[in-house]
Amino acid sequence: MNLIENISKNIYPLETIYVEQAKQRLDRLIKPTGSLGKMEQICIQLAGIYGRKYFDTSKKVIIAFGADHGVYEEGVAPDPQNITILQFKNFPKKINGVGTISKFSGSDVVAVDVGINCDEKLEGVIDRKIRKGTSNMAKGPAMTREEAEKCIGIGIEMAEKYIQDDYTLIGIGEMGIANTTPSTAIISVLANCDPTEITGIGAGLKKELIQHKASVIRKSIELNKPNPKDSIDILSKVGGFEIGSMAGVILGCAANRIPVVLDGFISYAAALLAYNINPITKDYMIASHSSAEPGTNKALDMMGLEPFLSMDMRLGEGSGAALSFNIIEASNYVYKNMATFDEIDMGR
Amino acid sequence: MNLIENISKNIYPLETIYVEQAKQRLDRLIKPTGSLGKMEQICIQLAGIYGRKYFDTSKKVIIAFGADHGVYEEGVAPDPQNITILQFKNFPKKINGVGTISKFSGSDVVAVDVGINCDEKLEGVIDRKIRKGTSNMAKGPAMTREEAEKCIGIGIEMAEKYIQDDYTLIGIGEMGIANTTPSTAIISVLANCDPTEITGIGAGLKKELIQHKASVIRKSIELNKPNPKDSIDILSKVGGFEIGSMAGVILGCAANRIPVVLDGFISYAAALLAYNINPITKDYMIASHSSAEPGTNKALDMMGLEPFLSMDMRLGEGSGAALSFNIIEASNYVYKNMATFDEIDMGR
Repeated sequence: MNLIENISKNIYPLETIYVEQAKQRLDRLIKPTGSLGKMEQICIQLAGIYGRKYFDTSKKVIIAFGADHGVYEEGVAPDPQNITILQFKNFPKKINGVGTISKFSGSDVVAVDVGINCDEKLEGVIDRKIRKGTSNMAKGPAMTREEAEKCIGIGIEMAEKYIQDDYTLIGIGEMGIANTTPSTAIISVLANCDPTEITGIGAGLKKELIQHKASVIRKSIELNKPNPKDSIDILSKVGGFEIGSMAGVILGCAANRIPVVLDGFISYAAALLAYNINPITKDYMIASHSSAEPGTNKALDMMGLEPFLSMDMRLGEGSGAALSFNIIEASNYVYKNMATFDEIDMGR
Repeated sequence: MNLIENISKNIYPLETIYVEQAKQRLDRLIKPTGSLGKMEQICIQLAGIYGRKYFDTSKKVIIAFGADHGVYEEGVAPDPQNITILQFKNFPKKINGVGTISKFSGSDVVAVDVGINCDEKLEGVIDRKIRKGTSNMAKGPAMTREEAEKCIGIGIEMAEKYIQDDYTLIGIGEMGIANTTPSTAIISVLANCDPTEITGIGAGLKKELIQHKASVIRKSIELNKPNPKDSIDILSKVGGFEIGSMAGVILGCAANRIPVVLDGFISYAAALLAYNINPITKDYMIASHSSAEPGTNKALDMMGLEPFLSMDMRLGEGSGAALSFNIIEASNYVYKNMATFDEIDMGR
């Protein structure tokens, strides 16, 4: 049995006894039943994940993966490819979007190079480079099956490393110029829809190029014929190293009973790959914000996930996940600290 | 000229020079243009409100008003009426929803009694009681025109008091059993729609009673014939003391160039009253979360406001406004602290 099958069989549903305990406590807080909406849902989910009535969510980290994409050469992204490396250098310094938000949220940021197109070792970045970017999926598979398994394995390794270090809330992030293209391909395959339905501007592609981007995605799927039942096959044919690594973090978190906070569109593709390996992973996912990409609802609806932030953000990096940490912690704080009807005289 | 006309003529649009300065800075941050979505919109709005390029949003307060409603006797709410007073006592103690969230967000909470049905003086609550609850709007006007002006005046007074004390971010909240009923009435009048379209369960009314609630609202409007062009007339006929006071806070904030954060459904009714007095007030409003009430979109669309939290909350109190303070502050933090392309070598 390989690593992925092995981890998948260690993923169990939420612990119902703690789900019930959390519901009972929430119903005793001095408010109409259910009136805190998703704040309550978050706490119920966390109790079921941790298998505890009370839990700490203060030690948080964003694990972000950087990689490049062979399909870049098809003209599907507005920026030069070297923006991946230039921006990835900013992750450990916390001066970029996810870094600045993380400073505000009191969260750490970890950056892992799984396939950036450079020979340089990046300061403060964990080096797990598989290859200097995927192959162009419009001309053949993006990576080998072994590489696909390897990048998922790196994600699992990273999740377990930070869980070992007592992090109890993990968010996923990424940097990779052109990576909305493989993400849209993955979602198209898994949602069985035409790429035109869900292709968007990514980081800012000119509107007149969206049809071109969609046709590159359609061509890549037609050429490589990924098997919709096999996430490793999809990842190897139309995926990306950072996307596979993010799916690995999700599997690693689920197998270790730690919540994993999704970010935007790229993370939905990763989440769908993990969900397709084992649908129980969904119990461990928290959808933070709605990406501005058009495939957002299609992807999240498949997993029954509902984000609670609608910021129209399209930055990626893990920025939405980091921002949502505040709301998750606020929810936990209210759950623990709001008065109950037993504690005060409410005259009833 | 009366107080309300006087304050209205002191409300000016956003200062475009600072709106432009904020946009320019945001476009220099190391990210694709506009990719932080509403985080950017918030900063642009704040710059235009304060008339400054940089600003501090750390001194925050929720001003919450409590009042009772004569229409309660029509059976439009699930809870006993004395929940208003029992819950209002918890505001100064910060042990309720808005209080607990405010402790997390580092915000103060101020509670003002403008019409609770009690003789008791409430500890820690500012007493500006107009009357022990409105009259039953299903049988006649909820209040006199003088009382309507008075409660708006109290809101203005409170806004100015806390602005004087250097608060730079003000949220509005409320407590008043049955107050989704007058709020729905106000929104129906201003949106010119039938109450059935927008009547919801409020704090948890049984679904089979929604039609009854809508018919009470329709009857109140038909009986009192509020003039849709005159907010004071609408407030006096189908409003509530806390709703008018919240509208007053909005007017007071707008006239003093301080942002005012809306909460849920009741606050939308207050916002529409203020907007109807002077549409420029909208420039000063920040819509925090989407209430779970069905009239939410109708109300917010009229003012062109888009909330950024979708929590399915229906608690009121100012809880959603307090929760959103985190996101507003995170936005300001990113705006100030994220690196710019000038500061780092991005190779372009």
